[in-house]
Amino acid sequence: MMSGKCIAALFLVLGSGLGSGSCGKVLVWPADNSHWLNVKSILEELADRGHEVTVLLSSSFLGIDATRPSPFNFEVIPVPFTKEDMASLMEDFLHMWLYELPNFSYWETTSRMCNFLSQLLSMNKATCDSVVWNEELMEMLREAAFDILLADPLLPGGELVAEKLGVPFVYTFRISMGNTVERLCGGLPAPPSYVPASMGSLTDRMSFMERMKNILQNLLFYALQDVLFHQFLWKEWNQYYSDVLGRPTTLCETMGKAEMWLIRTYWDFEFPRPFLPNFEFVGGLHCKPAKPLPEEMEEFVQSSGEHGIVVFSLGSMIYNLTEEKSNMVALALSQIPQKVLWRYKGKKPETLGPNTRIYDWIPQNDLLGHPKTKAFITHGGTNGIYEAIYHGIPMVGIPIFADQPDNIAHMKAKGMAVELDFNTMQTQDLIDALDMVINNSSYKENAVRLSEIHHDQPIKPLDRAVFWIEFVMRHKGAKHLRPAAHELTWYQYHCLDVLAFLLICAAAAVFIAVRCCLFCCKKCGRIVKKKKTE
Amino acid sequence: MMSGKCIAALFLVLGSGLGSGSCGKVLVWPADNSHWLNVKSILEELADRGHEVTVLLSSSFLGIDATRPSPFNFEVIPVPFTKEDMASLMEDFLHMWLYELPNFSYWETTSRMCNFLSQLLSMNKATCDSVVWNEELMEMLREAAFDILLADPLLPGGELVAEKLGVPFVYTFRISMGNTVERLCGGLPAPPSYVPASMGSLTDRMSFMERMKNILQNLLFYALQDVLFHQFLWKEWNQYYSDVLGRPTTLCETMGKAEMWLIRTYWDFEFPRPFLPNFEFVGGLHCKPAKPLPEEMEEFVQSSGEHGIVVFSLGSMIYNLTEEKSNMVALALSQIPQKVLWRYKGKKPETLGPNTRIYDWIPQNDLLGHPKTKAFITHGGTNGIYEAIYHGIPMVGIPIFADQPDNIAHMKAKGMAVELDFNTMQTQDLIDALDMVINNSSYKENAVRLSEIHHDQPIKPLDRAVFWIEFVMRHKGAKHLRPAAHELTWYQYHCLDVLAFLLICAAAAVFIAVRCCLFCCKKCGRIVKKKKTE
Repeated sequence: MMSGKCIAALFLVLGSGLGSGSCGKVLVWPADNSHWLNVKSILEELADRGHEVTVLLSSSFLGIDATRPSPFNFEVIPVPFTKEDMASLMEDFLHMWLYELPNFSYWETTSRMCNFLSQLLSMNKATCDSVVWNEELMEMLREAAFDILLADPLLPGGELVAEKLGVPFVYTFRISMGNTVERLCGGLPAPPSYVPASMGSLTDRMSFMERMKNILQNLLFYALQDVLFHQFLWKEWNQYYSDVLGRPTTLCETMGKAEMWLIRTYWDFEFPRPFLPNFEFVGGLHCKPAKPLPEEMEEFVQSSGEHGIVVFSLGSMIYNLTEEKSNMVALALSQIPQKVLWRYKGKKPETLGPNTRIYDWIPQNDLLGHPKTKAFITHGGTNGIYEAIYHGIPMVGIPIFADQPDNIAHMKAKGMAVELDFNTMQTQDLIDALDMVINNSSYKENAVRLSEIHHDQPIKPLDRAVFWIEFVMRHKGAKHLRPAAHELTWYQYHCLDVLAFLLICAAAAVFIAVRCCLFCCKKCGRIVKKKKTE
Repeated sequence: MMSGKCIAALFLVLGSGLGSGSCGKVLVWPADNSHWLNVKSILEELADRGHEVTVLLSSSFLGIDATRPSPFNFEVIPVPFTKEDMASLMEDFLHMWLYELPNFSYWETTSRMCNFLSQLLSMNKATCDSVVWNEELMEMLREAAFDILLADPLLPGGELVAEKLGVPFVYTFRISMGNTVERLCGGLPAPPSYVPASMGSLTDRMSFMERMKNILQNLLFYALQDVLFHQFLWKEWNQYYSDVLGRPTTLCETMGKAEMWLIRTYWDFEFPRPFLPNFEFVGGLHCKPAKPLPEEMEEFVQSSGEHGIVVFSLGSMIYNLTEEKSNMVALALSQIPQKVLWRYKGKKPETLGPNTRIYDWIPQNDLLGHPKTKAFITHGGTNGIYEAIYHGIPMVGIPIFADQPDNIAHMKAKGMAVELDFNTMQTQDLIDALDMVINNSSYKENAVRLSEIHHDQPIKPLDRAVFWIEFVMRHKGAKHLRPAAHELTWYQYHCLDVLAFLLICAAAAVFIAVRCCLFCCKKCGRIVKKKKTE
């Protein structure tokens, strides 16, 4: 399979024909929901460039309808639970997170979270089982001779399939709690004095107390990772990976073999921090210029006059609120001069004003790119945040879970967002927050500044992501970017063995010096005594 | 001044005309010799894109003849020493380094080096004096309203002029001893367990003893930097910078304000290591496809038949050898089947074979890109090394000073070079080394692999360098890439204040706990005693 684009991508070096590239075969181990939305942009570009894209798709995967026409091949993996089971698990989790956890004790929270993670783990494992122990499928995948596997480290299994098939793999990833996966498995350094632990909602400019909090948060995340993951999740995975690969290994060690980490952020969003040459920051790769809106929507938008519109969405996972909450929100929206387009699937709130329209689905990127748009009310998912940065729209962030509080903390620190607390916010808070981001010009100015930074890159994030995927396909890896840190144990990495040796040497030297002194003193003392007695 | 190319470089974002770029004014504070050769490529590209390039040129600068036509404006700074003084200082230094230092004691070496550095320092300062205290020149530069200043941190002064003019500045840089400048002033992290101290000739894969050596070398370089630079060089500069800027500052603090560090290497050469978003690795930006050779030279090259040719140059600074050395080298060259093109200005050696031709100057890049070229004998300067990587030619390295031993250590570790010791090498060593890199196919294979990596980048190094220079011009800086580490003191950076506080808290807690226990024990003891007495 060789398309025109792929032949154009063929690279000839030195004018002497060294090296060549051609269209390849890409295997994908996707994560669901917003993760899939992001990866899909990369896959569409790869397919467009003539590569053959095959997605290993659990039959319970929510984000894809494998029966609809697609530029990708889907290899559906039958799993012993349905899409409905998965949807209901996620809904239960969100309900618990939004309305129950705030009233729970620490232990109750931990127990419920462990219970949820345990269910996810067993579903994840069942999916893995259906692939790695299915000899027929594995043989078929082996025969297909894939050039690369694209995986999301959120969902273990991708790296295992890649290792078993002997195919190089590349991650596309947003974040782990405290960057522990990137740090422990990817070797990413993170000096705690100016690199805030991810999901800790701190910035890169920390006071003494904040630096202390950051260090303690780092330790806490390590401990949590250790308890939750090493003992609870990772321990099981370590055994699983060792069983499948037939040699003692760990999940983390296998993850560390990733050729590249394509991170879904960029320096418009991130605080400047040290990183490694095999980490590429490709945030916003899914963003595109706005397309025209549907006629009815455009009419409504135009009717807003000089006040413009506000776009409101809490993402694809939170489409429902309690009646009390939705009425409170609708009341606030009814009191602003802007027109509001609200993505919401729940019951129509009684307080809904004539300036607000509710939609099952909105063309979010096209709305954010509309010249009438003044503000974006968002839960702070990375995809939405990047669409706002791309189009330079200030935000009111109402973060719910996962990376969302941290995302909004970043946008707040960069002066592009105001944050509200989902559990405690009141009507007036939302009105004030909207007034602030719309009428205090600094928010718009900062949004435009970040947008300019985002658009002013040597090459576009999507092109960079595709470049490195194709690089790994051409060169069967990117070993020249892999730090030697992966070959060190944790105590070697921190040079603790060398420091211990140097300390022992120093102690021995001091000990010998002291003994020598004492010996000399003793001898001198005896001589003096002898002389005196003489 | 707006050229066609500059208008083409104009960038429109969001389709709504946010931000714009145009041709700008570039001021340059160059370093001499090979440094200038590298920077010149960037400046030529900038001039070609329509930017106005002005070079602040000391009248003693060796690498430029300001009277010849050039795409750049030269602002010649009269200094109280001539080109001849500078050339003779460099020649004396090289003679001392090559033939005297190997026989000197440690203290003699240090004293001679200090003497040399002291002369350089006073010349450097005289150049600065002629600029920063020349009110007329400074006023003219201020009025010219430069958009950016390009400097080489090897030669202090550039950042000072930029600060005084209020112009953002960008560094183009190769390396400092132990990366101390990049680390202390640029904030570059360097974990000693897998990042070898630059100029320490170690690689990223170190044994226990090598890691210990690396740590000690790091400490030594810090100490040397501290003694040589802080106490000796930097101390004077700190005072100088404070005097000129009229506020207490240091050389290092001023250097830390660089918007970007354009480093003259890339991951084909470097060992993968952590870096910062305002460090861009643009090694090999001066390399170009080979042009045809002069007729006589092409004829000689073609006469080599299937054996091909060897290109030999020890760089622009070492064009002369002792009679004994040149005879030894010529004898070795006469015994190989290849034809040799040797850049050499000294007396023709008696042992020169008919297969070797001596040239005052050679078109090195064109020769290395010639299909007949089998090997490159080099002193290991970065420019030459990158031409060899670009064209995939294995090397025999005879490093002399500065970064050259480290460069060759990199190329050895990457399997593309054999190293010889300038002081101890004998005829047979050179014959064996050439035989090895020409006839052991692994050297050529590795050279081709590195060449492929070099050519397979998302955008070319020169384009990246120019992009970031233009970015800084467009945005008046690149503050979004600047790590917050610059705002921390050294003890805050290492979190020593937090650790000290936590330790004190822990000690206080232990102390109180012990006192409480003792108090309880005492009380219990008294009660028991009392009961017993009762």
